[in-house]
Amino acid sequence: MPQIGNMQPSQNRQQAKDSVMPLSPVPLHTQIRETLRHYILDGRWPPHTQIPSESQMMSSFGVSRITIRQALGDLQKEGLIFKIIGKGSFVAKPKVFQSLSRLQGFGEAMSPAGYETCSKLLSARETEASPAVAQRFSLKPGSRVFEIQRLRYLNREPISVDVSYFLLDIGRRLVQEDLVTRDIFMILENDYGLDLTHADLQIEAICADEFLARQLGIAEGAPLLRMERMTHAGDTPVDFEFLYYRGDAFQYRLRIDRS
Amino acid sequence: MPQIGNMQPSQNRQQAKDSVMPLSPVPLHTQIRETLRHYILDGRWPPHTQIPSESQMMSSFGVSRITIRQALGDLQKEGLIFKIIGKGSFVAKPKVFQSLSRLQGFGEAMSPAGYETCSKLLSARETEASPAVAQRFSLKPGSRVFEIQRLRYLNREPISVDVSYFLLDIGRRLVQEDLVTRDIFMILENDYGLDLTHADLQIEAICADEFLARQLGIAEGAPLLRMERMTHAGDTPVDFEFLYYRGDAFQYRLRIDRS
Repeated sequence: MPQIGNMQPSQNRQQAKDSVMPLSPVPLHTQIRETLRHYILDGRWPPHTQIPSESQMMSSFGVSRITIRQALGDLQKEGLIFKIIGKGSFVAKPKVFQSLSRLQGFGEAMSPAGYETCSKLLSARETEASPAVAQRFSLKPGSRVFEIQRLRYLNREPISVDVSYFLLDIGRRLVQEDLVTRDIFMILENDYGLDLTHADLQIEAICADEFLARQLGIAEGAPLLRMERMTHAGDTPVDFEFLYYRGDAFQYRLRIDRS
Repeated sequence: MPQIGNMQPSQNRQQAKDSVMPLSPVPLHTQIRETLRHYILDGRWPPHTQIPSESQMMSSFGVSRITIRQALGDLQKEGLIFKIIGKGSFVAKPKVFQSLSRLQGFGEAMSPAGYETCSKLLSARETEASPAVAQRFSLKPGSRVFEIQRLRYLNREPISVDVSYFLLDIGRRLVQEDLVTRDIFMILENDYGLDLTHADLQIEAICADEFLARQLGIAEGAPLLRMERMTHAGDTPVDFEFLYYRGDAFQYRLRIDRS
């Protein structure tokens, strides 16, 4: 019987115990879930390792498909593994997180935690405001705005695509700045003297389209955390953004009070 | 040439204008995007309508596949349509939102906006705490906790699956309460006299597994907004939850300050 714990290429060839105890009061799917969790947390199955197929595990553990599915479903709900339809299940990386307790740019939020961030400029152009963008800036439909698209990296891996809109005067200045290493918030505040005060956020989950999937190096249809963020300087809307974070790599954290 | 705007069953049989203006300074994909947006926003294509295939639109608009894809990608990124791999693109419903400005139960947050909420009890049982649950309650691994799984409805449609964990004494009491119409927060505060103070949240995007997809009436692999929430009464952890919201139907909103 193949040993599931050793099915992936690994330096560690010690025998794993894939057996379950049918007479134990602990349900079979719980036993299997905890065995798989152990393989993930002890590093035997590093991030992005493909998990053995359901059939392989049915054979190795000697249990039914439904039991395997229940174990995998639990691990997926916990975020320890993720599934790509038609390809199988894979070990997730521990997610990096950004606090939402105050408004911060990505670099600014990540640097104190020891992460290295940078951006690749994907495009910068004047364009016609979409109805959503025009409305947020209180512009007439069809007005011109400036759009900047950046791919953002965390420790040299792509983590998000940021699509930012500005009024023309600010956008035309911004595109001449160092957008590779600097947060736009910092440029707006320190170089342009804008007093950024607050932002309105909308957070949702969507599927990656072909463009976002290609930029982020993930499968089309993979889950993304989508943030819509309108940043203000007092009453003035300044920076309207759509941020698309890799669902498998990123989370927001926040403490909120009851009253 | 078929008229895309009339391709779906509709009371409104008036001729749509699917033509594009090749010599216009407005890019073709923008013209098509705005035409499709119009069909969605004027109600000609109601929520969950399947959008004509890429081939149908290529023929109707007389443009290339890449142009159609760019238009659809824009609408998908905006959240107006969503794609199911292998099935096609569909019109999204306007998303309901819950504010994160203060800690509220779902019913409590939705009722003032005129929404009707209720829950279906999926399961309630004592179980062994997973490592994640044990850690959050500062319990020894393997300790017993109480788990309550509910399917939550908004205006009679399933919107989220909530999996909640409690210490045994609270859980055993809770399961005897009216969990169909009442928020657990309300029971904890009003009936049990607990003074809920704050919660720590983690927000991420995941794919629906088979169980969540079935409960929520969505496709396996569809995006979900996942919230992990530990609610405290002062220093005491009380209610640890995993909330899985339909990505196509729900968003969080929040205002945050710069300093």
